[in-house]
Amino acid sequence: MAMKKRSGTMRREKTVEEYADGILQHNRVMLAQAITLIESNAPRHFQKAQDVLKLIFPYTGKSVRIGITGVPGAGKSTFIEAFGMYLCELGHKVAILAIDPSSTITGGSILGDKTRMEELSRHPNAFIRPSPSQGKLGGVHRKTRESILLCEAAGFDVIIVETLGVGQGETIVKDMVDVFLLLALTGAGDELQGMKKGIMELADLICINKADGDNLSKALITKQEYESILHFLQSATKGWQTKVMTCSALYKEGIEEVWNMIQQFITHCKERGFLEEKRAAQMKYWLGAMISDYLYASFYGNENVKRTRPMLERKMMNKEITVSEAADQLIRMYEQRK
Amino acid sequence: MAMKKRSGTMRREKTVEEYADGILQHNRVMLAQAITLIESNAPRHFQKAQDVLKLIFPYTGKSVRIGITGVPGAGKSTFIEAFGMYLCELGHKVAILAIDPSSTITGGSILGDKTRMEELSRHPNAFIRPSPSQGKLGGVHRKTRESILLCEAAGFDVIIVETLGVGQGETIVKDMVDVFLLLALTGAGDELQGMKKGIMELADLICINKADGDNLSKALITKQEYESILHFLQSATKGWQTKVMTCSALYKEGIEEVWNMIQQFITHCKERGFLEEKRAAQMKYWLGAMISDYLYASFYGNENVKRTRPMLERKMMNKEITVSEAADQLIRMYEQRK
Repeated sequence: MAMKKRSGTMRREKTVEEYADGILQHNRVMLAQAITLIESNAPRHFQKAQDVLKLIFPYTGKSVRIGITGVPGAGKSTFIEAFGMYLCELGHKVAILAIDPSSTITGGSILGDKTRMEELSRHPNAFIRPSPSQGKLGGVHRKTRESILLCEAAGFDVIIVETLGVGQGETIVKDMVDVFLLLALTGAGDELQGMKKGIMELADLICINKADGDNLSKALITKQEYESILHFLQSATKGWQTKVMTCSALYKEGIEEVWNMIQQFITHCKERGFLEEKRAAQMKYWLGAMISDYLYASFYGNENVKRTRPMLERKMMNKEITVSEAADQLIRMYEQRK
Repeated sequence: MAMKKRSGTMRREKTVEEYADGILQHNRVMLAQAITLIESNAPRHFQKAQDVLKLIFPYTGKSVRIGITGVPGAGKSTFIEAFGMYLCELGHKVAILAIDPSSTITGGSILGDKTRMEELSRHPNAFIRPSPSQGKLGGVHRKTRESILLCEAAGFDVIIVETLGVGQGETIVKDMVDVFLLLALTGAGDELQGMKKGIMELADLICINKADGDNLSKALITKQEYESILHFLQSATKGWQTKVMTCSALYKEGIEEVWNMIQQFITHCKERGFLEEKRAAQMKYWLGAMISDYLYASFYGNENVKRTRPMLERKMMNKEITVSEAADQLIRMYEQRK
């Protein structure tokens, strides 16, 4: 009875080969389902997703991976809609993914509302995927970068990864894209107050949005301000001086120029072997990050460690034991019974 | 025979209590020997050093801990000599420690040559300790911060931790001091090229050195330049706008002002409970860092992991396996036989 009900309401589960074939045939429904598989936290889904990834892996890596960030209010949705539409009209296939580790804190999701990019979401060349459901930073990290691979295998040649611009998301996105775009507003001084420390040093390209109407002259001043600050910072990508541009996503001005600049950046990197280098380094970084996640979960999730840690930390704070002693005792607790 | 020789040439090893008593009686020879004990890599010395630290721990924490960094050529030695002499003459007891994780790369040691601060090293109120011998970053880290505690227990009320300003040392020093001073030169733009990314955001106080003679007007311009950049960066300590000053270590000008500013900073932080907060956070950070060191050493030093890692990384780079698969396999190798 229970079984009957189950088989009646659930679709037959697809095989690894069905997923992979569907993706390689550019089947969007299959792509969406495979991403859902990757996002699942069930162990058997993990293995299956890995098997799918293994089959499509040789067909990945051919897109331009673009990270886009900016403080709330910088007009990210409007920009991505205008930018995405421009690329789709040029014949590109554009996938938009979001990474939003802060959603667990804010309760909101940056791409939860698909209608945010109404025109783009209806375009046959565009694929918009909301932020993965809440989870650990490391987990979201893995899910997004594996989704990039699926999108590439499904024929998307421009992948945009969007992040909120206020949390830890930026450095993580930086480690999965080829080029990083910071969307900014006029009034650099005031606005930067709300920006995360160091975010400017991640950007290969800064674009001052809302450079239209009365705001245009302010935007040009802001551009100069950013340029003078950048003069004192190290560039995000070696051999590339971070560029500052202006645009108006609302009036679709400067969008082509942004794309041209991104292409220039990619060419610059490819010619010098930097792109290949960057992607290889990113893979090693991801491997290390996954291993760290595992090690920390194993240590701090250990029952002995969990039980004794608060007491040892208290003793340490009260100067009854040294930091080294506290570490030593915790490690001994961990080793005792793993 | 062998035993006789040994007892004949070696000093009797001091007991934990002898070390602790000596330090608490402000015996400098005992302090120096206890630091040597802390710097030792022998396991039995580790335990003994921890026992000494435990005894002196209640007598620590009463100094002003100052981190000083700057690119080579900024005049760190001259500055520390002038600054230290000024403090010693005021009656302070000043200990100078160096952290130099880059010494393994450069082959040199920043405080290896005591004669660098000739006048200060002869002052009865000063204690200068060269950089610990080469080792892992985490190890040097521990040794330096434990040496701070020994110096405090030995009656030193100003501890200066010096770092080279080009490596990873700065963030580590930042995590063991109350206030962080960046020593800079005129011509911010050019000089910053040689500075480590983000170093300005670590500083509570930037001091443009060599502000004398023909260089004075340039120093004042540089000061303004730094101030305008700082306007766009987040301050290193919450509620404190990073200050920029000028000085001439050579002519002993501006030294008193630096000390006054440091005192102002400390008062500011103490009044708001920030200092206590910072030191508590630092202890937790150290604990976490020591545990990370252990976990990484355990994982990457594991024989199974060492044997299979190059092959798995190669497969991953060749897209034969995914990153998640590589991580999964390494973790399984590690779990197999710890």
